[in-house]
Amino acid sequence: MKKIEHIGIAVKNIETSNELFTSLLGVEPYKMEEVKSEGVLTSFFKTGPNKIELLEGQSPDSPISKFIEKKGEGIHHIAFEVENIEQEIARLKKEGFKMIHEVAKKGADNKLIAFLHPKSSNGVLIELCQDIK
Amino acid sequence: MKKIEHIGIAVKNIETSNELFTSLLGVEPYKMEEVKSEGVLTSFFKTGPNKIELLEGQSPDSPISKFIEKKGEGIHHIAFEVENIEQEIARLKKEGFKMIHEVAKKGADNKLIAFLHPKSSNGVLIELCQDIK
Repeated sequence: MKKIEHIGIAVKNIETSNELFTSLLGVEPYKMEEVKSEGVLTSFFKTGPNKIELLEGQSPDSPISKFIEKKGEGIHHIAFEVENIEQEIARLKKEGFKMIHEVAKKGADNKLIAFLHPKSSNGVLIELCQDIK
Repeated sequence: MKKIEHIGIAVKNIETSNELFTSLLGVEPYKMEEVKSEGVLTSFFKTGPNKIELLEGQSPDSPISKFIEKKGEGIHHIAFEVENIEQEIARLKKEGFKMIHEVAKKGADNKLIAFLHPKSSNGVLIELCQDIK
């Protein structure tokens, strides 16, 4: 794990939360992006070497909408940047972690991503991500 | 906000979680520290420019024990490193954020810290921290 690439925060309304996080972080989001496969609209803020990703569900059955229904708005996941995502998936499986995605897939922000199952990591939803070159 | 200084994760048993996060992150905790004022035992892992802090409540009335009772184990807070914590508290109050600590206090890992109230920041518990020089 090279660093915390970003923290994902589930929000009900990305427009009002963009304003809130602009005030909080002192910078505006540098981009917004829809990830149709996940049914989410995202926005990204830079904070030094890290990012904050806001996520708004685009339909009631999106994972983000379900998360908010169950737990309310708040921190949804931590994403760690890795050098080689396929090697890291193999290493973590060998260590006994359960993957939601055993094969990396295309995510937001030009990345290959894979999520670990939170049940095997203390209730924390963890994403691995690697830049697509 | 200079960067994500650390992410705080509430755990039931810091010994078993230390093993889990050592497997996950590929590094051992570089220190453990008790913060008596908060009733918590903490451990710290480095991941590049960021840290992961595990927190175990030391009594049923510790904020961490109460958090776990209500929400289960998982991500408890995000801490941002700031240049000047008193200036940042003043700026955020002016922006309308509600502070839990209006004056910075001594926290773990040789830092001055202050928490924002999660109700004013989308359900996210945010800590500001500044190194004590």
